[in-house]
Amino acid sequence: MNRNDRRNKKNTHAIDILIVCSHFLPQVTRKTSLLVVNKSNMVKTIISVDPKKLPWQQETPLHNRWHPDIPPVASVKEGEVFRVECVDWTGGQIKNDDNSDDVKNVDLSQVHYLSGPITVEGAEPGDLLKVEFLNLGTLDGDEWGFTGSFAKENGGGFLTDHFPCASKACWDLEGIYCSSRHIPGVRFAGLIHPGLIGTAPSAELLRMWNEREATLVAEEGTDKEKTLCGCLHTRPLACLPEAKGAMLGKLGHFKDKQEDSEWLAIANEAARTVPGRENGGNCDIKNLSRGCKVYFPVFCPGALLSMGDMHFSQGDGEVSFCGAIEMSGFLELKCSIIKGGMKMLPVVGPSPLSVNPIFEIGPLEPRYSEWLVFEGVSVDEKGVQHYLDATIAYKRAVLNCIKYLCQFGYSEEQVYLMLSCIPCEGRISGIVDVPNAVATLAIPLAIFDQDVRPPKTLEALAAGVKIVQNVCMSTEGGAVPLDPRL
Amino acid sequence: MNRNDRRNKKNTHAIDILIVCSHFLPQVTRKTSLLVVNKSNMVKTIISVDPKKLPWQQETPLHNRWHPDIPPVASVKEGEVFRVECVDWTGGQIKNDDNSDDVKNVDLSQVHYLSGPITVEGAEPGDLLKVEFLNLGTLDGDEWGFTGSFAKENGGGFLTDHFPCASKACWDLEGIYCSSRHIPGVRFAGLIHPGLIGTAPSAELLRMWNEREATLVAEEGTDKEKTLCGCLHTRPLACLPEAKGAMLGKLGHFKDKQEDSEWLAIANEAARTVPGRENGGNCDIKNLSRGCKVYFPVFCPGALLSMGDMHFSQGDGEVSFCGAIEMSGFLELKCSIIKGGMKMLPVVGPSPLSVNPIFEIGPLEPRYSEWLVFEGVSVDEKGVQHYLDATIAYKRAVLNCIKYLCQFGYSEEQVYLMLSCIPCEGRISGIVDVPNAVATLAIPLAIFDQDVRPPKTLEALAAGVKIVQNVCMSTEGGAVPLDPRL
Amino acid sequence: MNRNDRRNKKNTHAIDILIVCSHFLPQVTRKTSLLVVNKSNMVKTIISVDPKKLPWQQETPLHNRWHPDIPPVASVKEGEVFRVECVDWTGGQIKNDDNSDDVKNVDLSQVHYLSGPITVEGAEPGDLLKVEFLNLGTLDGDEWGFTGSFAKENGGGFLTDHFPCASKACWDLEGIYCSSRHIPGVRFAGLIHPGLIGTAPSAELLRMWNEREATLVAEEGTDKEKTLCGCLHTRPLACLPEAKGAMLGKLGHFKDKQEDSEWLAIANEAARTVPGRENGGNCDIKNLSRGCKVYFPVFCPGALLSMGDMHFSQGDGEVSFCGAIEMSGFLELKCSIIKGGMKMLPVVGPSPLSVNPIFEIGPLEPRYSEWLVFEGVSVDEKGVQHYLDATIAYKRAVLNCIKYLCQFGYSEEQVYLMLSCIPCEGRISGIVDVPNAVATLAIPLAIFDQDVRPPKTLEALAAGVKIVQNVCMSTEGGAVPLDPRL
Amino acid sequence: MNRNDRRNKKNTHAIDILIVCSHFLPQVTRKTSLLVVNKSNMVKTIISVDPKKLPWQQETPLHNRWHPDIPPVASVKEGEVFRVECVDWTGGQIKNDDNSDDVKNVDLSQVHYLSGPITVEGAEPGDLLKVEFLNLGTLDGDEWGFTGSFAKENGGGFLTDHFPCASKACWDLEGIYCSSRHIPGVRFAGLIHPGLIGTAPSAELLRMWNEREATLVAEEGTDKEKTLCGCLHTRPLACLPEAKGAMLGKLGHFKDKQEDSEWLAIANEAARTVPGRENGGNCDIKNLSRGCKVYFPVFCPGALLSMGDMHFSQGDGEVSFCGAIEMSGFLELKCSIIKGGMKMLPVVGPSPLSVNPIFEIGPLEPRYSEWLVFEGVSVDEKGVQHYLDATIAYKRAVLNCIKYLCQFGYSEEQVYLMLSCIPCEGRISGIVDVPNAVATLAIPLAIFDQDVRPPKTLEALAAGVKIVQNVCMSTEGGAVPLDPRL
Repeated sequence: MNRNDRRNKKNTHAIDILIVCSHFLPQVTRKTSLLVVNKSNMVKTIISVDPKKLPWQQETPLHNRWHPDIPPVASVKEGEVFRVECVDWTGGQIKNDDNSDDVKNVDLSQVHYLSGPITVEGAEPGDLLKVEFLNLGTLDGDEWGFTGSFAKENGGGFLTDHFPCASKACWDLEGIYCSSRHIPGVRFAGLIHPGLIGTAPSAELLRMWNEREATLVAEEGTDKEKTLCGCLHTRPLACLPEAKGAMLGKLGHFKDKQEDSEWLAIANEAARTVPGRENGGNCDIKNLSRGCKVYFPVFCPGALLSMGDMHFSQGDGEVSFCGAIEMSGFLELKCSIIKGGMKMLPVVGPSPLSVNPIFEIGPLEPRYSEWLVFEGVSVDEKGVQHYLDATIAYKRAVLNCIKYLCQFGYSEEQVYLMLSCIPCEGRISGIVDVPNAVATLAIPLAIFDQDVRPPKTLEALAAGVKIVQNVCMSTEGGAVPLDPRL
Repeated sequence: MNRNDRRNKKNTHAIDILIVCSHFLPQVTRKTSLLVVNKSNMVKTIISVDPKKLPWQQETPLHNRWHPDIPPVASVKEGEVFRVECVDWTGGQIKNDDNSDDVKNVDLSQVHYLSGPITVEGAEPGDLLKVEFLNLGTLDGDEWGFTGSFAKENGGGFLTDHFPCASKACWDLEGIYCSSRHIPGVRFAGLIHPGLIGTAPSAELLRMWNEREATLVAEEGTDKEKTLCGCLHTRPLACLPEAKGAMLGKLGHFKDKQEDSEWLAIANEAARTVPGRENGGNCDIKNLSRGCKVYFPVFCPGALLSMGDMHFSQGDGEVSFCGAIEMSGFLELKCSIIKGGMKMLPVVGPSPLSVNPIFEIGPLEPRYSEWLVFEGVSVDEKGVQHYLDATIAYKRAVLNCIKYLCQFGYSEEQVYLMLSCIPCEGRISGIVDVPNAVATLAIPLAIFDQDVRPPKTLEALAAGVKIVQNVCMSTEGGAVPLDPRL
Repeated sequence: MNRNDRRNKKNTHAIDILIVCSHFLPQVTRKTSLLVVNKSNMVKTIISVDPKKLPWQQETPLHNRWHPDIPPVASVKEGEVFRVECVDWTGGQIKNDDNSDDVKNVDLSQVHYLSGPITVEGAEPGDLLKVEFLNLGTLDGDEWGFTGSFAKENGGGFLTDHFPCASKACWDLEGIYCSSRHIPGVRFAGLIHPGLIGTAPSAELLRMWNEREATLVAEEGTDKEKTLCGCLHTRPLACLPEAKGAMLGKLGHFKDKQEDSEWLAIANEAARTVPGRENGGNCDIKNLSRGCKVYFPVFCPGALLSMGDMHFSQGDGEVSFCGAIEMSGFLELKCSIIKGGMKMLPVVGPSPLSVNPIFEIGPLEPRYSEWLVFEGVSVDEKGVQHYLDATIAYKRAVLNCIKYLCQFGYSEEQVYLMLSCIPCEGRISGIVDVPNAVATLAIPLAIFDQDVRPPKTLEALAAGVKIVQNVCMSTEGGAVPLDPRL
Repeated sequence: MNRNDRRNKKNTHAIDILIVCSHFLPQVTRKTSLLVVNKSNMVKTIISVDPKKLPWQQETPLHNRWHPDIPPVASVKEGEVFRVECVDWTGGQIKNDDNSDDVKNVDLSQVHYLSGPITVEGAEPGDLLKVEFLNLGTLDGDEWGFTGSFAKENGGGFLTDHFPCASKACWDLEGIYCSSRHIPGVRFAGLIHPGLIGTAPSAELLRMWNEREATLVAEEGTDKEKTLCGCLHTRPLACLPEAKGAMLGKLGHFKDKQEDSEWLAIANEAARTVPGRENGGNCDIKNLSRGCKVYFPVFCPGALLSMGDMHFSQGDGEVSFCGAIEMSGFLELKCSIIKGGMKMLPVVGPSPLSVNPIFEIGPLEPRYSEWLVFEGVSVDEKGVQHYLDATIAYKRAVLNCIKYLCQFGYSEEQVYLMLSCIPCEGRISGIVDVPNAVATLAIPLAIFDQDVRPPKTLEALAAGVKIVQNVCMSTEGGAVPLDPRL
């Protein structure tokens, strides 16, 4: 075999090469016909936002409800790389300052402000839409974020019975790293992701959602309510459709349309964006970042993909609710369609629509070598035994971690917000050993500027206490801490 | 500075060296006085077992209950490296064969057979006991394991309503790898750990356990029972103390002592080992392997450490209950004491004893670069909406994964057992977005001998189906699958 | 202790909080005096480029030589986040097309085009300059890159005796991923880094460089030349200062100044940027990406930091010379100064200036779980034994890998370019076992769309051969392959 | 489809199951015919050693030379799991004490003591032998290791011109961790591997080795010698065959056979085991541990696999020569044969035998998140410029690291030995940028009990110096340090 056969003699623009590639394998003919591609390297921005403007002032209208009739604002082809920009989930209600009254008084009827819907050409109900996350980032000039916990009277959080007051910490974003003047001594790399991304529900799926959530809310105040996870009764059971605060993209928004009966009809049945559901939505998967792929079910023609609620970083569970490091940002995405592929999504529930997306995580998560792990079992703070209740077990693991880290100079509020947004891992470790569910919360040691492992002696610990700054807080009161030793 | 100053001139056995170590730093005097240590390199085996013998025939008596009065069988000093051998959790009831009737008929009153208690010299109530995991492994000549799911009538599992029959898969352990003739096409590295390790409870803590668990069991058959996590009603609510099957170490066991009133008094109040509790116990943390450390509270003089339930590998949640790859094995450990350190453990509940151990994970977990992630929300298989119920959300994620993987040629039972023991991760992703908890289950792609990602076309998928072996199963029946498309 | 003490009562903008943070530790007073910061979130762009313009048309003048007299073009303060944009190392000579004549005819007297020098305020000779890499990326609209190997007559590469012709592959950059129409079947995440970054040399250091390199070049054609690493004789020994092609920032460039004697004086002593040296420079460390830090020696007042030669990805060794995926791009950086810290840099050589920077790598490298590793020993292709020569050992490992991968359908040229830019690891495994140095080259399996491990049978291998596209190549000829079986 | 079809009705021992596994895919028939396997779980030990005995007293004779005529001592089948035990490479010459005279006076004519050769049934010349590493560990009762550097007069090391005296550090092995009384302040997890493993050479390959190495040694004292890598002249160029110290397995050893002319004929042509070569051999790949696979060429009938030189841990390069943590130990292995597969190994050199093994690394390396990286370029300590010499560049990177770490309280000898055995990575970063090769040495920060990163101020550094113990050293003298600032 002559090696020269493998070289292209004239280097013309359309070239044929015949080569044989391996000496002992079946001969392979290598034929090259390269076309000269005039590649345009611009990533196409299909939705842009200006974080300095109010949500209803954005050029491309946003939406904050799920409804099949919200018209698409952009369209993409399979394989095309496109860029979508998003405002933060509250639409700019929270400011980069040292006062948490904006968190306390936030209008939650407006959340989450989403960019979309986007039509993916060729997608039909029953298909599977593969969305690849090519890049994600901050918007130039808006490189900051916030973590908050809502007041008990207005949204609350996972530990609202322990932390009833609104609080806020602001974060400076420096490249991949973040730090906060409100939580000194911690710095870590973010893993930017959209807290919320999903396809539009069909009318039938929307009806399913509204029915099952209304059924739950109807239990409020009845005996049945007591059958719910016991520790969380102080929070709303669910957020049902509500015209107040609704923004329906090209159909208009609550400021303009509240008298418009056609608009009202849709606004009154459009689902809130708070929970994750069959279409994806607010699934808050903390490592859905660069290099990941999601396989979404397609319920409506064109798929109608929407997204928002950008997070710079989140801990598993996003425990403080306004958790994560909330920010504006952009996504660069690419879509492809697996025809008829929705059949691959497992159906567990009663309807063929009872599916969930599948996620594929890539090799780019930060590597942390050492972790400290807190355990919780399903016995609540009053000592009551619950039956395999992973929610209570996780609550306890979170409380254990908060109280532990306070020994290193943090306030409880600082740790609560921190656990919402550092790359901590919440695991269901045991879910069969009656009566206790075991949940664990693992925190990476490398993000602290001190060693937070148990020291050799208590004297060594005492020397470490030094952090004196605190988060912003808004309201008087708060639950009495449950530590019986106090 | 003369470099020769740093060398020891005569190399005698007790030598003094004076050296100055860095040219621009404060001078440091390096003085070496090495003693010749006649180091004995034998790791001291303090408890050995013979897996071919019955539990009550072991030389050092085992125990399968928690009670402060079970006498220690061995004693170790701080810093000493010691080896403990353990039988499998059932004490040899399950065999390495192709019949699952042993799983169906297992006597669960006998579990878990533990090695210990071990006195750590100097440990007193209120101390923190640091246990370091130096090495773990199989016993020579017993390199196999099993994964099973119990029959609905006898223990059940997380998905017992879907998988009511007993089943079993046996695993060959080859060094760090395992494979099963009952689940072909999967091979992975184990992460050997004790499913169960803990310190003995004090009398007061034991009383707390018995009271709260009895309170729960008392709800059985009452209206209150319906308030429990809805999906799991077919299983026992808790396992209360029971003399039947009890083994109390040096105090004797159920075969000999059932007429002995003193023995009966203790057996009737000794706690079962099934759930994880304040003392650690059956916490089933899947990566508690080589290089990890645990910080245990000390409730009794000498700490009284016990351990068993060795796993070759486990998935988060150990969903099939007789999950994990159960085996006999050994641990090499080292203990140290943080005097008074129990104060560092957070107290959340009503008593100063309401603590949990803290775990420290090292850098030796397998690195998997790619994962497929299944999501579940807290809507059950009948479409009923539950309020932030992480247990239901996780159940659904597990069901989603099972149904998905069946498309690649596995039976549902194979996947169910597989998810009990492969290194899958169960995460609480969202716990605040009312009404849905979001749980995820991530499986590493590298353990399969086929690509189980969604393919580009359904035709490509069809070509992949080829696995024809199944697990052993014992009983007729089984729930009707809930997939409405079937 | 009253929990309310920990809350700020009025949430004014300047607030005092007194809190006591841990119940059993020494009391700590937490005093908060937050100032309202009017934070400007704009990252300051200090040097911007337009990749569509020629190097000498850029607004801020570039430079391509090292000399202390090249004036700074920008200035930054400690702690300030700033952005620097860079053209590709050739200044746009290479095009995104399917013809490699541009690589063949490249003018190497012009490389590498750098952005800078940048003054870091307060930095003085003897200090240590810490540069933190906060973010790196592509320039909007210029998301592509190239990998090439130069012709033997014009620069060559590590294997120029095996691959004497110019070749080129172009890459499409999609977010963190890249793929090439010229090397189908491979796709991977990049790890963007500057191939070249460093501080300006002092006059004395520059003189050292020029003397030692001139001494080496003087050996060309003498007997002494044969004492050099034998395999590489066909390439230039070093690139001495050369006014041709020189660009000296604000001092002007070769197009304008070749008659200017003052300019010529500097151009004739300014060091070429090709090798890495004491100031950092072209060190081509492939994982110097987001989250890393470099500690540079400061030789000139203001440190005079310059950078360029952006790579989307590189393999250890950058073997094809025009290796890596070369691109334009940006860096966001932050500097701080360790006063007098240059003393911490080890001095090995004869002068106090004989130092090298130290690098700190963060947790964000891609995790690959499985690698295939090729070994080479210091016996050359003719069978001649060399003494502990790691260069020859590595050459052989690279050749081994090239020939191996060809069995999977790639051409040798494709693998050669691929090894320049995929995240492969080149290791010195053994450097003491006379007479053989052992070097290894490890390639991550996950980047291929086929399994490139040795198959169970040769028949299985034969089925896998299918890739028929090739890289662009320019010249006739090429070494006869050395495989004696051909 | 009826789910019950998937269950086995009677659970007999030989069962047929017909199942259809996926609702929308082509129907697959699942037929189960399980045989009851009476699996013996004993791993078969084919070679055992007693580390308390001298090499020539071992029950199974060892060997320390490569020759095709050394008869096999054991035989294994494809797929069989077998265990091989090995003495340390010196055969017990080095003791666990505080005197380094044993290292100084070591008899290197005896190394490396290997276990084998082992016949793999069915392997023939031209095949590829796949060896899988299932488990590796220490021998019970011999859990210690040593790291040494040889005296300049007797073997030397990579830096013998800087460190001419013999030195020794002993390590305690605790499970996966090690620590040394001679190098306090460092503790890390080992990655146990055989430094040396390979197949026997054929007569033709052996002749090739002897010829090329003799040619090199013949250059000693001639002008040609000066053409070798300049920095290493003080060490022997190669170790040619030598009957003194030879041990040839069943053929007998130097103590008994030195008068036996048949034995002498073989001993005088058997290759020394020092360098890695075409058969694998002493390749010192530091992560060849649990879960790895090696593909060896087969040159002799039965493959004739031998192994030894067990390391608890090694750094890339094993720079001090008696580097790594040398120990006795065991391997559990499994072999399979790829018929005719040697053709897959790339041939670069002049003969079809000029191949190298291929290695496959698994997912079980320790994860370290943070590294400090030292750079070296190919300018030697005297300031002489070398041409792309990776050996010199690496030497310089190692020297840089040694001098740097001394600032934290270590002696230079401590760091030198440490770099031989900690999991440091030696990389060839740049091999094309004439005239400088760039090599890097990366050390994981987590293994130190202090923070060895450059501190914010030099004052902060001064506080950290505290380590006063030193390694054992034997001889007067030593090179004058080259730091011009001293």
